[in-house]
Amino acid sequence: MASKTLHLGAFMRPVSIHTGAWRYPGAQPDANFNFPQLKHLAQTLEHACFDAFFMADHLAVLNMPVRALQRSHTVTSFEPFTLLSALAAVTERIGLVATASTTFDEPYHVARRFASLDHLSNGRAGWNIVTTANPDAALNFGYTEQIDHDARYVRAREFFDVVTGLWDSFADDAFLRDVESGIYFDPARMHVLDHHGPALDVRGPLNIARPIQGWPVVVQAGSSEPGRQLAAETAEVVFAAEPDLAAGQRLYADIKGRMRQIGRDPSHLKILPAAFVLVGETLAEAQAKRAHLDSLVHYDSGIASLNGMLGHDVSGYDPDGPLPEIPETNASKSARARIVEMAARDRLSIRTLAARAGSYSGLAFVGTARSIADEMEAWLLGEASDGFNIMFPWVPGGLVEFVEQVVPELQRRGLFRRAYEGTTLRDHLGLPRPANRFFA
Amino acid sequence: MASKTLHLGAFMRPVSIHTGAWRYPGAQPDANFNFPQLKHLAQTLEHACFDAFFMADHLAVLNMPVRALQRSHTVTSFEPFTLLSALAAVTERIGLVATASTTFDEPYHVARRFASLDHLSNGRAGWNIVTTANPDAALNFGYTEQIDHDARYVRAREFFDVVTGLWDSFADDAFLRDVESGIYFDPARMHVLDHHGPALDVRGPLNIARPIQGWPVVVQAGSSEPGRQLAAETAEVVFAAEPDLAAGQRLYADIKGRMRQIGRDPSHLKILPAAFVLVGETLAEAQAKRAHLDSLVHYDSGIASLNGMLGHDVSGYDPDGPLPEIPETNASKSARARIVEMAARDRLSIRTLAARAGSYSGLAFVGTARSIADEMEAWLLGEASDGFNIMFPWVPGGLVEFVEQVVPELQRRGLFRRAYEGTTLRDHLGLPRPANRFFA
Repeated sequence: MASKTLHLGAFMRPVSIHTGAWRYPGAQPDANFNFPQLKHLAQTLEHACFDAFFMADHLAVLNMPVRALQRSHTVTSFEPFTLLSALAAVTERIGLVATASTTFDEPYHVARRFASLDHLSNGRAGWNIVTTANPDAALNFGYTEQIDHDARYVRAREFFDVVTGLWDSFADDAFLRDVESGIYFDPARMHVLDHHGPALDVRGPLNIARPIQGWPVVVQAGSSEPGRQLAAETAEVVFAAEPDLAAGQRLYADIKGRMRQIGRDPSHLKILPAAFVLVGETLAEAQAKRAHLDSLVHYDSGIASLNGMLGHDVSGYDPDGPLPEIPETNASKSARARIVEMAARDRLSIRTLAARAGSYSGLAFVGTARSIADEMEAWLLGEASDGFNIMFPWVPGGLVEFVEQVVPELQRRGLFRRAYEGTTLRDHLGLPRPANRFFA
Repeated sequence: MASKTLHLGAFMRPVSIHTGAWRYPGAQPDANFNFPQLKHLAQTLEHACFDAFFMADHLAVLNMPVRALQRSHTVTSFEPFTLLSALAAVTERIGLVATASTTFDEPYHVARRFASLDHLSNGRAGWNIVTTANPDAALNFGYTEQIDHDARYVRAREFFDVVTGLWDSFADDAFLRDVESGIYFDPARMHVLDHHGPALDVRGPLNIARPIQGWPVVVQAGSSEPGRQLAAETAEVVFAAEPDLAAGQRLYADIKGRMRQIGRDPSHLKILPAAFVLVGETLAEAQAKRAHLDSLVHYDSGIASLNGMLGHDVSGYDPDGPLPEIPETNASKSARARIVEMAARDRLSIRTLAARAGSYSGLAFVGTARSIADEMEAWLLGEASDGFNIMFPWVPGGLVEFVEQVVPELQRRGLFRRAYEGTTLRDHLGLPRPANRFFA
């Protein structure tokens, strides 16, 4: 193996980020909501030695106009914990990353579910921490308006402290189960958290043993300013994706630099950008496949995606004119910035931006197995990433092509494992097991 | 088959209600928290054609003194949705009943998880609605004191309306997935709930298709006065257990009478009392086994259980004296009433009551396969129950003895199925699939 190797996650909710994916020839239209198919995909990814199966999440039917919504293959999806727990029972090694919101859930529930998934999977759970931005989600949880971006991050930081504190409720050796004396556990090895903070009051202890991994692996997007700081302080995997190598290097240096400043070892966080990867026999074939895929996205979906990314409705403007000035909103700051930058740089019309937004506008590797491996190697060796979270163009075909063509090319170069060396997600990622803050 | 037949659930959290279970010769001390073992038990129950695998739940480490707590095999347990989803992937037919609290959870989360479990299991989910009474649970969710008993039931009723309304967000035929036109679902077949009530504001729609069963099966304890009324209005399975046949008949008549009064078909609710069942080759052997099991419960555990059931600390009174007057509390009213009645009727000391409370003081069938089948048949034909939720004395032995000895005896009498006739939990229980309130 090379001295530096890639980590690969599979970004599996939706099974393809691409709005046209379910219509592609050979695609399974219902793959996003078909358990036998998802089981087969997870087993295929495990056979290819992927680090993790990653479930994004939304706490609402996405807020887009009905004329776009009716075309979305994400409107019905499994809830992450139920799906990943079912997959835990039919896989052996692949990591299982679930998304849970710090804005609309309780730390006791979140800590408990991840601990339970980690035990059920024998140490394969990861927590993608999100601070839900979708205003429609707020309406599903009794709020009349969205919670402010900065306030969400303040609660997220406290929420993280409470969840990790609850995971440490029991020492690893607390459970004696001494049949003779009748002592099931040592109460001196149980800690009552008794947390009282600005946003949360949680007594504890958690009613489940410490997770196999100590803590499930902590995952974050980490793209906005408070997001990057939260990631530097708490994350072990970041999946923010810059659109090119140079921007990727800046993000990588920024987050790892923030870690050094607060005394964290930079190797204890892996930057695995979400990347759309489409492979063909030739570059021309790959580009033709992407063009076909993009052509399956209706304009109604494109403009809705664009509005969503901007956090602002531009459908009233001339489709063939330029993008107007976009005000600050509660939408994801990185998505808005990326679109505004792309529009200015390439002088794109709203119509063209809508096509890109609706098809997928972020980091993409479209080419042959060799050219894709070249790009991944350049990102890895150029310190722009430690690997990638792969978004497949459609399933099963696009996933199978990646596994059968790109993975062997990476393995030939010594850039990716041919077999799992450990059993836990931490083992796969080369992350240390956290010490218990309350017990030696 | 006889014209009336039994339904059998397995009450599996904890794997045995009996505090001494984990110490019994041949028992697996960690069975409550051992996934391979729980998988084996679920598959054994499915082979015996049980209707359902039932997970009780607690949202805290149980509030008992440490000297009792350290002897409890329930202090570490899987979270119900993660465990049942994992079991869904390794079973085919048995129903999967999870407990979820209306007091400390959000209806959007609860509706979504049950819908997801129902889809993953192809129609085998059930929801045990509880209104969490444990004051230590309140402290884990930001409350400084327990919420009043009646207020919990008011919220529970509204919570039920919201959850079932969210399950009806999509018509059964909403998802078209028309590759040609690019229409994934028909927006005219999606309903926005837009609920605004005294306790809850929830917009909807739910981001998952309508459950396979329409609604997962609705399960309740249904023992207290508001609990019985809520059950008559909303439940499809009740597991409240009276200690003898005559009391069981009164409860059965009461709940089914309440149903008739509000125009519900009494056959649309199955009363399946939780029953502790211990089988031996002879009555004497069975009684000796129970005595052995009871002897494994330490006095410290017994007095703690007694205090918990009374909702009142009686450990300061003379252990060999009578039970003092017990004030009204927020504890489960049925448990307190049962103990107080038992104490008065049999003139039992606190010490004896503690031994019963700590070992298990409710409905029990202890005898031979034939005597147990006789009792079950008497309850069924005497209109005291429609079956039982079985609590095993220990596992795996106590469960295996029930499956190998009592089930065949019930089958010989035509009182229990030899094979599943349908695929869903509703099929097993003979319950109708609810109509969608918003769509024909």
